[in-house]
Amino acid sequence: VERQHQAALEARLASFHPADIAFVLESLEPDARDLAWSLVRADRRGAVLLETSDNVRRALVANMAPEDIAAVVAPLDSDDIADLVSSLPEEVGQQVVARLDNADQAEVRSMLSFPEGSVGALMDMEFISVREDASLEAVQRLLRRLKTLPPHTSEIFVVDRSNRLQGLLSLSRLVLGDPETPVSAEMTRDVVFFFTDDRMRDAVDAFERYDLVSAPVVNLHDQVVGRLTVDDVVDEMRERANSEGLRQVGLSDEQDLFAPVLKSARARWPWLGINLVTAFMASRVIGAFEPIIEVLVALAALMPIVASIGGNSGNQSAALVIRGLALNQLGSHQLWRMLEKELRIAAFNGLLCGLILGIATIVLYHDLALAAVITVALVLNLLTASLIGVCAPVLLHRFGRDPVMGSSIILTATTDSMGFFYFLGLAALFLV
Amino acid sequence: VERQHQAALEARLASFHPADIAFVLESLEPDARDLAWSLVRADRRGAVLLETSDNVRRALVANMAPEDIAAVVAPLDSDDIADLVSSLPEEVGQQVVARLDNADQAEVRSMLSFPEGSVGALMDMEFISVREDASLEAVQRLLRRLKTLPPHTSEIFVVDRSNRLQGLLSLSRLVLGDPETPVSAEMTRDVVFFFTDDRMRDAVDAFERYDLVSAPVVNLHDQVVGRLTVDDVVDEMRERANSEGLRQVGLSDEQDLFAPVLKSARARWPWLGINLVTAFMASRVIGAFEPIIEVLVALAALMPIVASIGGNSGNQSAALVIRGLALNQLGSHQLWRMLEKELRIAAFNGLLCGLILGIATIVLYHDLALAAVITVALVLNLLTASLIGVCAPVLLHRFGRDPVMGSSIILTATTDSMGFFYFLGLAALFLV
Repeated sequence: VERQHQAALEARLASFHPADIAFVLESLEPDARDLAWSLVRADRRGAVLLETSDNVRRALVANMAPEDIAAVVAPLDSDDIADLVSSLPEEVGQQVVARLDNADQAEVRSMLSFPEGSVGALMDMEFISVREDASLEAVQRLLRRLKTLPPHTSEIFVVDRSNRLQGLLSLSRLVLGDPETPVSAEMTRDVVFFFTDDRMRDAVDAFERYDLVSAPVVNLHDQVVGRLTVDDVVDEMRERANSEGLRQVGLSDEQDLFAPVLKSARARWPWLGINLVTAFMASRVIGAFEPIIEVLVALAALMPIVASIGGNSGNQSAALVIRGLALNQLGSHQLWRMLEKELRIAAFNGLLCGLILGIATIVLYHDLALAAVITVALVLNLLTASLIGVCAPVLLHRFGRDPVMGSSIILTATTDSMGFFYFLGLAALFLV
Repeated sequence: VERQHQAALEARLASFHPADIAFVLESLEPDARDLAWSLVRADRRGAVLLETSDNVRRALVANMAPEDIAAVVAPLDSDDIADLVSSLPEEVGQQVVARLDNADQAEVRSMLSFPEGSVGALMDMEFISVREDASLEAVQRLLRRLKTLPPHTSEIFVVDRSNRLQGLLSLSRLVLGDPETPVSAEMTRDVVFFFTDDRMRDAVDAFERYDLVSAPVVNLHDQVVGRLTVDDVVDEMRERANSEGLRQVGLSDEQDLFAPVLKSARARWPWLGINLVTAFMASRVIGAFEPIIEVLVALAALMPIVASIGGNSGNQSAALVIRGLALNQLGSHQLWRMLEKELRIAAFNGLLCGLILGIATIVLYHDLALAAVITVALVLNLLTASLIGVCAPVLLHRFGRDPVMGSSIILTATTDSMGFFYFLGLAALFLV
């Protein structure tokens, strides 16, 4: 019965789209996942691997011999093989590449030589190019001989005799144009193209801005070497979007939902460690004022409010700046304008929150001077928060760091310590 | 000279892509923006408006009369007009629509009737459909008569006599196939399509998963009524990605960098208000233990550490859950597994951080009992944090709320209050 079940499941899986199989595999726990993987037909495994996340992919191939992996990936395009190989442990990757046939090997190695995050590393190498003096009819004949076109072929690249990019001929112009006219009369010369070492994130911006479906990739001699297609761009956008929330809390998106506890716990140490240090520093600020708290214990109850509202307000500034940076909207002039505006908002909202808090303090503790101190401390901390909220992401970005990853830690460390310092310091000066 | 300058700028702008002009406009301050807008040629203003963010768009049309807006948008496709109109104040929108010609009016009104965030509201209505018994040659003749194809036409829809979707004929099959063969022999019958009231976010998932460039949109009778293209999907993804960081801190992405200070300050009130309330609640927890703090003032210095590490650890759990929800990977079985795992990680990391903190406490305060209390309080608070970090986003999601927007507030409120409560409560029981 078990076997009958498996046969039914196997038949079922065979009718699924590879992306759907990948989705199922990712949702399964390791044991069930291995079972399901064994039921995927060998000739579809490459396509399925291509759609899984890096982590699950590594888990799936962990038990396979390099020659089996090579057999599974062999039917794929060289750019897809390179993509898969780059996510394997280096040694295994090398062994897999060594088992491919020679032409594939050369292409895969050249793809792997492009740095991660570059257009070259993600482009595909299948494209069709024609000369501009050919007639549309000749092009149509050429295409018919090919039997199938690479996926997402919406344009054909027009090159000169040295393979240098001259323009694009869209499939629709090819269909609509008079068969007798030369390619040069129907092609577009105003082309968006990329160099192999352009960054993918810039390519994503260009695809979004100019509504592209595919674009040629050229080397430093303007020779066409590949093609970037919108599905790669969509995958890249998706990956960036999915990792943003994780990067904010110091995690990478390499997390497998079902990785062992110890491994997952360890992934969180760096961020927790930094937090432990910053929280400890804030605690030492309080420690310096222990004698005053002993005299006026209400300070202990009120001080976390000053710290907490500062952190929240600063995170709002930081979120706006991070978006501005992502959209490339912050030149130095805009930045100063924004800093000035954030400081004004902080002063205004600080005064407002501070007054509410002051009134609450009077009601609770019947102490006017204490109320004045908390109001002033809150305004000062909100000003500090907006300053750090604007500057921290900008500086991280300037120094080539990820503003999403570091801003909130820097910000909270500052607003906690300074919040306690302003409040307790003012109290020491004026209240005791 | 001023005038000469402007003429030069005007000529310069005329050579820009509309998306680039929109980018320039968004980066300019209001005065300069209005000046630059007046230099954009009237016949390009519609295309530029289409590329700007909602807020800048509203600012640009604020000074235009409805008939001028109607003149500017008239050359656009009806779906683009609907997109623009829906971002205008309702009254202005109505007046603009009333000034369009009759055919456009009907189409725009039907587009506007689809709910926001649905496929219908974002589809475009320009598509080409043919019958399956036509020959490829007949299709080519039909297309040549059209002179141009709608942008991103990579497929032609195949319909029956009642306009019901039968399949897709890709342009490449049209080019490659023998002109004599009928459409039915070259078309794909296994088609990904959408209903007008499908949610855009599901459509985005499907485009990503199946690498689509365009897809037919049908009504409840399976009749083709429109087409969804990858550029709409890319825009939607971009918008969602850009708004995520803002939604986390209670802001919408309607923020104009240069909106007046008071307006921007007010946009932050709801979130700051909630934070004021939760911080105040945490403060009252401390207030209840003031007598104990008076006796042992070290508690005041140490308590924020317990609260802060709890918040951070919980945010890590929440980020993982939010990503799992976004990827549709969390069925109820996976959810229980994940909760269990997060609790284990919290216990492990809590014990580790707690021990480090305990040792620091002994070094600073030479108090073994105090060290034991802070270790236990930290473990308890990390367990609470992982419970809330997993449950808060899931519950928000179940009740149709945005987990990105509410999770961190709920989490921090809990970890602050409970962190103080565990630590001071244990201290009250065992130390004084």
